[in-house]
Amino acid sequence: MTVSAARMRVGFIGLGIMGRPMAGHLVNAGYAVTVHNRSRAAVEALVAGGASDGGSPAGVVRVADVIILMLPDTPDVEQVLFGPQGVTEATRPGQIVVDMSTISPVATRDIAARLAEEGVAMLDAPVSGGQKGAAEATLSIMVGGEQAVFDACFPLFQVMGKNIVRIGEIGAGQVCKACNQVVVAITIQAVAEALTLANKLGVDSAKVRQALLGGFAQSRILDLHGQRMLDGNFQPGFRVNLHHKDLNIALTSGGAAGVPLPATAIVQQLFGALRGRGDGDLDHSALAKLLSALSGLD
Amino acid sequence: MTVSAARMRVGFIGLGIMGRPMAGHLVNAGYAVTVHNRSRAAVEALVAGGASDGGSPAGVVRVADVIILMLPDTPDVEQVLFGPQGVTEATRPGQIVVDMSTISPVATRDIAARLAEEGVAMLDAPVSGGQKGAAEATLSIMVGGEQAVFDACFPLFQVMGKNIVRIGEIGAGQVCKACNQVVVAITIQAVAEALTLANKLGVDSAKVRQALLGGFAQSRILDLHGQRMLDGNFQPGFRVNLHHKDLNIALTSGGAAGVPLPATAIVQQLFGALRGRGDGDLDHSALAKLLSALSGLD
Repeated sequence: MTVSAARMRVGFIGLGIMGRPMAGHLVNAGYAVTVHNRSRAAVEALVAGGASDGGSPAGVVRVADVIILMLPDTPDVEQVLFGPQGVTEATRPGQIVVDMSTISPVATRDIAARLAEEGVAMLDAPVSGGQKGAAEATLSIMVGGEQAVFDACFPLFQVMGKNIVRIGEIGAGQVCKACNQVVVAITIQAVAEALTLANKLGVDSAKVRQALLGGFAQSRILDLHGQRMLDGNFQPGFRVNLHHKDLNIALTSGGAAGVPLPATAIVQQLFGALRGRGDGDLDHSALAKLLSALSGLD
Repeated sequence: MTVSAARMRVGFIGLGIMGRPMAGHLVNAGYAVTVHNRSRAAVEALVAGGASDGGSPAGVVRVADVIILMLPDTPDVEQVLFGPQGVTEATRPGQIVVDMSTISPVATRDIAARLAEEGVAMLDAPVSGGQKGAAEATLSIMVGGEQAVFDACFPLFQVMGKNIVRIGEIGAGQVCKACNQVVVAITIQAVAEALTLANKLGVDSAKVRQALLGGFAQSRILDLHGQRMLDGNFQPGFRVNLHHKDLNIALTSGGAAGVPLPATAIVQQLFGALRGRGDGDLDHSALAKLLSALSGLD
């Protein structure tokens, strides 16, 4: 790194539900931010707030030291980096690509190797905390990559998040995110099975949740998503469609590494069933809605 | 209830790993306690401490107002209550049976109905917290049955536990315990899948656990059992054999009620695989040991 954090010029590509407020925080923190997004509305809103319009991924790269990506899935990241007018049409040695999307850890390692050939460093830095965390700059950020590159980008992460941890080398952030999504999905299903069982057996599931919170079954999911299930409140939150995608990443990574993930596979199938019922845009706690329906409770 | 709590005479049947310290606490609290157990060693130890030897379930009942059961499984409870020299050979109207075993909620409702014909009240009051909770009198106690009967027995529960909740009518304690065991088992599997995936993908699973504890994936299981998995410490704790039995209760109850429990079923199969490998006496966190073996990690 030859550029000090204070003078870092930031590129930001991908201004969706998450990327737009994240880029906004960087603008508000005083960074020179150049943005790009496929649809124009978000670009115009950021430019009105003080950002510059890069016009294309390559256009962003020409005026940035660090290029942040916040895109939906692995193919989108590959397209933005290596496609026509993509990032690598304009990269210079010494630049840093920070991919904050949630994508495949295996693909991440391949992408980093390709960027390294151009002299470009990379961090994978997926987040958790959702729309709320992005809006409030309280995201958890799980980072993979070299320590020196992490240190250089740390001030940027601090503008967007709170719990910022370097997990290991390149890909480790995505592995950690996949692990997070595995634990969250399966724990939601655990709570859904328990509360549905209580309900169908004629026992007050609110009392069951309360009793279980006092013992080994305690979890943040039992607390928050358990309450959502009791309230029948399945407005997102975090959407079934996105969690389904994230479990595909975990299962594909597990498949490549030879790790069977039987409970993950079951929950991915159940998310698929929710999508088939037209419930893909509900909160992931809708696993309880599916189980209630299967049990004849609605 | 015509007997005040202070003068309650207590019978205690089933002096295993859990029952023996629980009965000991009642003796130490000054109750007149009469005990019975199939094997003699535990009886003699309790008698040396001040308890009386009932000689049989019926013998216990003749000198007790409240009869506590702490037995391995549903058939054991049915045998002690209704078999030869069983509890019901000697019951008097006004007595109370408190079943603290973990058994089927459906069977519990049947048993309570049979006891009611004799004028005997019943509570189901299964516990969580394991050997440690029994030894330290910090058990969580989940109770089903009439409020007045619960109130009468509350002083006894206070001697053995800390988190004492009446969940609902008869059977509700067992339903709550089944729900607890479902959530705990599936959450252990969730953590096992995540940490094994990280491990096999070459990422420090200790750092993953630490990062996940800061977000939505947080649970007491991730904290305690996750640490066990990192340490490779599978000494019980709570044994695979017992958790396998408890999931059978949940699945049978779910089956009877028409509630499919797909993740519970998967974990019950994996507990079965551990039993088949001769690992039934390990701690239930050994689900991670099985997954490591399946992944070629040991």
